[in-house]
Amino acid sequence: MTEGRFLSLEGGEGAGKSTQARALAEALAARGVHAVITREPGGSAGAEAIRTLLMEGEATRWSAHSEALLFAAARADHVEKVIRPAIGAGHWVICDRFIDSTRAYQGVAGGLDDAAILALHAFGSRGLLPDRTFLLALPPEVGAARAATRDGAAADRFAARGEDFHVAVTNAFDRFAAHEPARFRRVDATRPPEDVTAAILSELADWLP
Amino acid sequence: MTEGRFLSLEGGEGAGKSTQARALAEALAARGVHAVITREPGGSAGAEAIRTLLMEGEATRWSAHSEALLFAAARADHVEKVIRPAIGAGHWVICDRFIDSTRAYQGVAGGLDDAAILALHAFGSRGLLPDRTFLLALPPEVGAARAATRDGAAADRFAARGEDFHVAVTNAFDRFAAHEPARFRRVDATRPPEDVTAAILSELADWLP
Repeated sequence: MTEGRFLSLEGGEGAGKSTQARALAEALAARGVHAVITREPGGSAGAEAIRTLLMEGEATRWSAHSEALLFAAARADHVEKVIRPAIGAGHWVICDRFIDSTRAYQGVAGGLDDAAILALHAFGSRGLLPDRTFLLALPPEVGAARAATRDGAAADRFAARGEDFHVAVTNAFDRFAAHEPARFRRVDATRPPEDVTAAILSELADWLP
Repeated sequence: MTEGRFLSLEGGEGAGKSTQARALAEALAARGVHAVITREPGGSAGAEAIRTLLMEGEATRWSAHSEALLFAAARADHVEKVIRPAIGAGHWVICDRFIDSTRAYQGVAGGLDDAAILALHAFGSRGLLPDRTFLLALPPEVGAARAATRDGAAADRFAARGEDFHVAVTNAFDRFAAHEPARFRRVDATRPPEDVTAAILSELADWLP
């Protein structure tokens, strides 16, 4: 049995996280590694039900505090029901957004204390962190332009926020990556998708057969 | 303008909390005090949506940690959107269950640390506590028998739990009341409803015109 690994993909809107999750899973499969693709908010039946509450409605539907608690509840369910069992079974898990998105969106950009968000994560998910986190780095205006051209993309409660919010999110991710170099790998996401995938793979060479 | 007051009614299933909430609001109205009746989980649009997630489905649908986070999220919304504005406008608020139910059900009976639950409450609702909490005290087997005879009562995820769970809840409420005598008033709920209402009113005499 291979050793399970937990990878997260982070970044603002339009950075290509879900595209890279699929491409990375395919590249891993070609190397004999089975990877489970999942996403947040959501990823388990309970967490997807909470996701619906989080993503729909007015931008001001939830206070920052309620929102952070809902994210923590969804994450706790996702970790318990999907992520830990998959890792325990020796699979790799590729998660499209994880705790760092809550730290960036609800924390830095939303005005909540990082320590408080990490305390909720410690309570709900026993503080599980990815083994490696890929930050798909993109200037916020590029991401916004990409996200706006998605087919049928109805802007959700987060994508609909203003430019300052998305700049704050971008800066927050950059700071997290600088602060935790052992966990984070920053990847230039302005490049063509296949180059981004290759860059991610090269940062996983130490764990690949 | 009168001074707003926040009252909570606590106790196990079938203790008569919702009946007493209505009777108390009527008795207060007769004395010129406007009281808002509300309940948890729920009480605001967002919290009612979370309530649906909490009350439906299998008893094991949520882990204790996810459940506590969902309760805290719902309470934060309820406090922000309903309870604090009502108190701020000089009304009284009568809440059918509040933080002590989470402490009893998810904490003592569910195995979560009381300090952790209070920390979530401090985060979500700035630790708001009722000015006075009435514990409608009933032996658990009496409450279970009453709850079972309700018209059309489909047992929810909590009422459906076993006897040991409900004994643990009853004991937990008793301990909370003993530990916080300034906030709690223990009322014998085996008596006829009108006697219970009279007992509650007598414990509010200091605040009534």
